[in-house]
Amino acid sequence: MDGTDGTAGIAFVKGHGTRNDFVLLPDPERTLDLTPQLVTALCDRRGGIGADGVLRVVRSRFDPEAAAMADAAEWFMDYRNADGSLSQTCGNGLRVFARYLVVSELAPAGRISIATRAGVVHVDAGPDGDITADMGVPAVFDTSFATVDGTKYEGLHVSMGNPHLVCFIDTPVENLDLTGIPDVDASVFPDGVNVEFVGVADDAHAVMRVHERGVGETASCGSGACAVAAALGVRQGVTSGEWVLDVPGGRLGLRLDGDSGHVFLTGPAVLVAHGHWTAGAA
Amino acid sequence: MDGTDGTAGIAFVKGHGTRNDFVLLPDPERTLDLTPQLVTALCDRRGGIGADGVLRVVRSRFDPEAAAMADAAEWFMDYRNADGSLSQTCGNGLRVFARYLVVSELAPAGRISIATRAGVVHVDAGPDGDITADMGVPAVFDTSFATVDGTKYEGLHVSMGNPHLVCFIDTPVENLDLTGIPDVDASVFPDGVNVEFVGVADDAHAVMRVHERGVGETASCGSGACAVAAALGVRQGVTSGEWVLDVPGGRLGLRLDGDSGHVFLTGPAVLVAHGHWTAGAA
Repeated sequence: MDGTDGTAGIAFVKGHGTRNDFVLLPDPERTLDLTPQLVTALCDRRGGIGADGVLRVVRSRFDPEAAAMADAAEWFMDYRNADGSLSQTCGNGLRVFARYLVVSELAPAGRISIATRAGVVHVDAGPDGDITADMGVPAVFDTSFATVDGTKYEGLHVSMGNPHLVCFIDTPVENLDLTGIPDVDASVFPDGVNVEFVGVADDAHAVMRVHERGVGETASCGSGACAVAAALGVRQGVTSGEWVLDVPGGRLGLRLDGDSGHVFLTGPAVLVAHGHWTAGAA
Repeated sequence: MDGTDGTAGIAFVKGHGTRNDFVLLPDPERTLDLTPQLVTALCDRRGGIGADGVLRVVRSRFDPEAAAMADAAEWFMDYRNADGSLSQTCGNGLRVFARYLVVSELAPAGRISIATRAGVVHVDAGPDGDITADMGVPAVFDTSFATVDGTKYEGLHVSMGNPHLVCFIDTPVENLDLTGIPDVDASVFPDGVNVEFVGVADDAHAVMRVHERGVGETASCGSGACAVAAALGVRQGVTSGEWVLDVPGGRLGLRLDGDSGHVFLTGPAVLVAHGHWTAGAA
């Protein structure tokens, strides 16, 4: 490095949405060699910057994975998990990505189309305030069960592309011990499942804790929140509705649109720092 | 923020020594209002940058706490714990602080005197490679005991300014369960104690795991490593010696100097990123 004002190294931005945090790498022409090793080094919370994942910001036309979406979406969210693997999309990450585009004047505030590995996603973003992402149509299946800490809970199987089991529970969610892995029906969920435990405060307000497959309890899960919206619609017998959902990392807004069947996820996106990654240079 | 190249916000550097990590804040004239709230926000591993602590880099003559040391040490390491409280000094932090001074050309490579709340500390630092800090004279007291996971271990009480209990154990240290708090003699350690569990590989090589009071198991503890050097000297009946000490976060070197009685701690210091903290601006 060359002091604190130098431009050596890899430019990054750090941000989070309801405490789901990301290292963004502005790389418009996709010149960066983003190896799994680099991703894990960046996401290392002690040896690196630390994050749940990396969001590379690439112009779609420069990325073979996104070039076909370039007419619909100028920017591609190249999302990598902290372990270096590729990932399709992320509700909390989309908000942080959109906030970066607006603040950096790479996209005008308003409706922004973002290319992801799950297709083009539409987001409404301003330079500050909450951001809303169109998370698509949930698929609702049968009921199933999850056993946690010796207690068996009934839940609704919902897919947002990834599998969820939404369990409405009567005991306060803060009393649950989610340190273990919920025991679920492997014939229904052969690849595991994200399990949401939801306490309903009133018709318009619920509280969620979530156990993400392969990770454990997290502070927030965007697709899980959307699965909860679908389950709340079923529970209340409505196809349209709006709810406030509190998660450990903050507050989300959910809207189920009866006409399109889409779920819209609203929440904060905060950019906290920007700089250059110089590891290895000193 | 104003894009990724702007200079708005608070300048920072992120670095670590054996995975004990720090946010450094270059603030030569002490103009920054470093509140506990700012420290905790910076150290927040999801909502902020994330670190074990903050090291403000201040010219001693500008800091009321360090002005009296200004003739002996140009720079003051203003060390704050992640919870915002003040701290005296830190063996791993000293190396990262010294590396920053050298790389930023605020001090020439070689012997650097650094002001801390525990007095002036001497460090030998180059632009790369390991860095050695003079950690002062350990005080060796009686034996005492720590009980962990149902097993009682004998240890040696050593003070490095803060209290340590160094337990040499025969079982491999990797087999210990350090998730609980070691049970110690409260009449000897009324304010708690850092407990080091040490496996001796040979006369010149040992392995340590450490439980830090108020924190839990950590990847490395500089003063704990120095306490181990003192205990190794007692165990081997020597007043001078050199040892390699492996800790979960990496490898440290220990030297006990018979003439001065001082312990010298050698280890890596890595700067991984630099940039500007802009939270609240977006």
